[in-house]
Amino acid sequence: MSTTSREVHLIERPDGLPTEGQFRIVETEVADPTEGEVLVRNVYMSVDPAMRPPLTNGQTPLDKTMGAGAIGKVIASGHSDFEEGKYVQHRFGFREYFVSDGNGLSVLDPTLGPLTCYLHVFGGTGFTAYGGLLEVGQLKDGENVFVSAAAGAVGSVACQIAKIKDCYVIGSAGSDEKCEWLKEIGVDAAINYKKEPIRKSLKAAATNGIDVYFDNVGGDHLDAALPRMNLLGRIPICGMISAYNNFGSISDGVTMLANMIYGRITMRGFVAPDFMHVREQFLADMGQWVSDGRMQYRETILEGIENAPKALIGLFTGLNIGKMLVKLSDE
Amino acid sequence: MSTTSREVHLIERPDGLPTEGQFRIVETEVADPTEGEVLVRNVYMSVDPAMRPPLTNGQTPLDKTMGAGAIGKVIASGHSDFEEGKYVQHRFGFREYFVSDGNGLSVLDPTLGPLTCYLHVFGGTGFTAYGGLLEVGQLKDGENVFVSAAAGAVGSVACQIAKIKDCYVIGSAGSDEKCEWLKEIGVDAAINYKKEPIRKSLKAAATNGIDVYFDNVGGDHLDAALPRMNLLGRIPICGMISAYNNFGSISDGVTMLANMIYGRITMRGFVAPDFMHVREQFLADMGQWVSDGRMQYRETILEGIENAPKALIGLFTGLNIGKMLVKLSDE
Repeated sequence: MSTTSREVHLIERPDGLPTEGQFRIVETEVADPTEGEVLVRNVYMSVDPAMRPPLTNGQTPLDKTMGAGAIGKVIASGHSDFEEGKYVQHRFGFREYFVSDGNGLSVLDPTLGPLTCYLHVFGGTGFTAYGGLLEVGQLKDGENVFVSAAAGAVGSVACQIAKIKDCYVIGSAGSDEKCEWLKEIGVDAAINYKKEPIRKSLKAAATNGIDVYFDNVGGDHLDAALPRMNLLGRIPICGMISAYNNFGSISDGVTMLANMIYGRITMRGFVAPDFMHVREQFLADMGQWVSDGRMQYRETILEGIENAPKALIGLFTGLNIGKMLVKLSDE
Repeated sequence: MSTTSREVHLIERPDGLPTEGQFRIVETEVADPTEGEVLVRNVYMSVDPAMRPPLTNGQTPLDKTMGAGAIGKVIASGHSDFEEGKYVQHRFGFREYFVSDGNGLSVLDPTLGPLTCYLHVFGGTGFTAYGGLLEVGQLKDGENVFVSAAAGAVGSVACQIAKIKDCYVIGSAGSDEKCEWLKEIGVDAAINYKKEPIRKSLKAAATNGIDVYFDNVGGDHLDAALPRMNLLGRIPICGMISAYNNFGSISDGVTMLANMIYGRITMRGFVAPDFMHVREQFLADMGQWVSDGRMQYRETILEGIENAPKALIGLFTGLNIGKMLVKLSDE
């Protein structure tokens, strides 16, 4: 016996916005699990802007199964740590089924909220927003905060944490629909950067300057924020989605960096492992905020492994509000 | 009785490289000091790139005596703290004589070295290099360091501190003569950025990457350094001399900032008061290094108050090697 699975391969390195033709859906047979192994059926997988640079820089191999954060269900088990019916979280997305010896799987205790939440508010994007804002950004209660790509999975959490900390929050996004949602989750000034140059609208919104700019975009957004930064401001650099589709991740030219000196600004690039020491606190805080209703989220879910490339590409064309996920099977 | 003094006024705000015509030498009469006052004859004054932005942004008033770090000699005193013949350090440069009630004057103990040293290695530029590299840049022994404007007053001290800390040091400057001097003071790779794009020559020199980039230039130099930065690298932003003559201190576009994320880089703008807590240690270390001969310096000295505007402008045209000073009278 075996199980037929479909998986996603990268077959050509994109130069610019990836196209669906640069990916291939490949059918394979997954052998039955033997003693010490489990068969996992994936349920949800995550796509994330940070997946884009590896497609071009070579870190994502060609013609091999791609990886992504995902949640699956154990459907056959020869491993005592992973009972049949349990949900497991892992990095083996972009495939429907796989067999594992348990390495890289962690059993998920689904009591904090719906299953999908483990891929956003309780997962990497939530933790990135939490640590990026509070640890890297050293946010203090009541400060003035600007978040770009604010309607995205990380940005929307960052905005709400800042609101919980009594901050004045400016968020930018690329559509009126996204801006409407930002207002619903408490953002004080929601900027549709496609309507007017971000430099102009940010200047108008940031009447008290910016103490922390949580940057997901880079390029023109960073250039607009720099002259608005208050003394001793902080710029956690979480992502540069504006640059990821350019060869070498080259962004629009940032010309206002002299403000770094006048304002004695700190800018810092980071990844979530930089603040693992606050992970327990993060889970406690986030669990509380979600159950209080103070942390809201939206999901954009495409269905079927065949739509995984489209989901990934859609991150760069504004397809998602909140977290972009792919549903691979019923729970 | 009174003393005839000449002083420098800014009479027109520069847009671009300042011209001598935008300054005026004004003759005034300085009254004799009364009880509790001193008459100071300035001996040396400092010009510094950081003086440039205030000329345009309005911080330097028009038609008033400009300020600058300077050393003067007390030539008449009615104040017991400042005996006749003592040297005093202060911010009342750009003038030949002045009367003071002692506010802002500090008596100089000229035992550490020649008088001019108090305006560079023992002064603001030396301290800026020391704190910028060791405190802001968190330099560790043996790291790989890049210093731009390396033959300037701050850069040349930064290079030598890095060599004292057993680092591999790359320095950039704008002439072969400056690069020759950089080699004399121990710089491992001296780049004349006017000969070849800095991006290319820096890539060739930084075979082990860069752990600390001490940035005095911004623009193309910063853009060249970013892709060369090692994991957890640091970029103390000391100055952006490439931008200071542009309206709004706009630099050439910096396009490689996505490297901030991949390398988890920290970039920080600073001013010397940020690290006053290491001032005692700085004076002890620098005194030792200068007397050991491990800290060398060069001075470019123009003579006479009438040449003060020329000295200031010359900072942006490459006129100086090492510290640019104006000699206003004999010691």
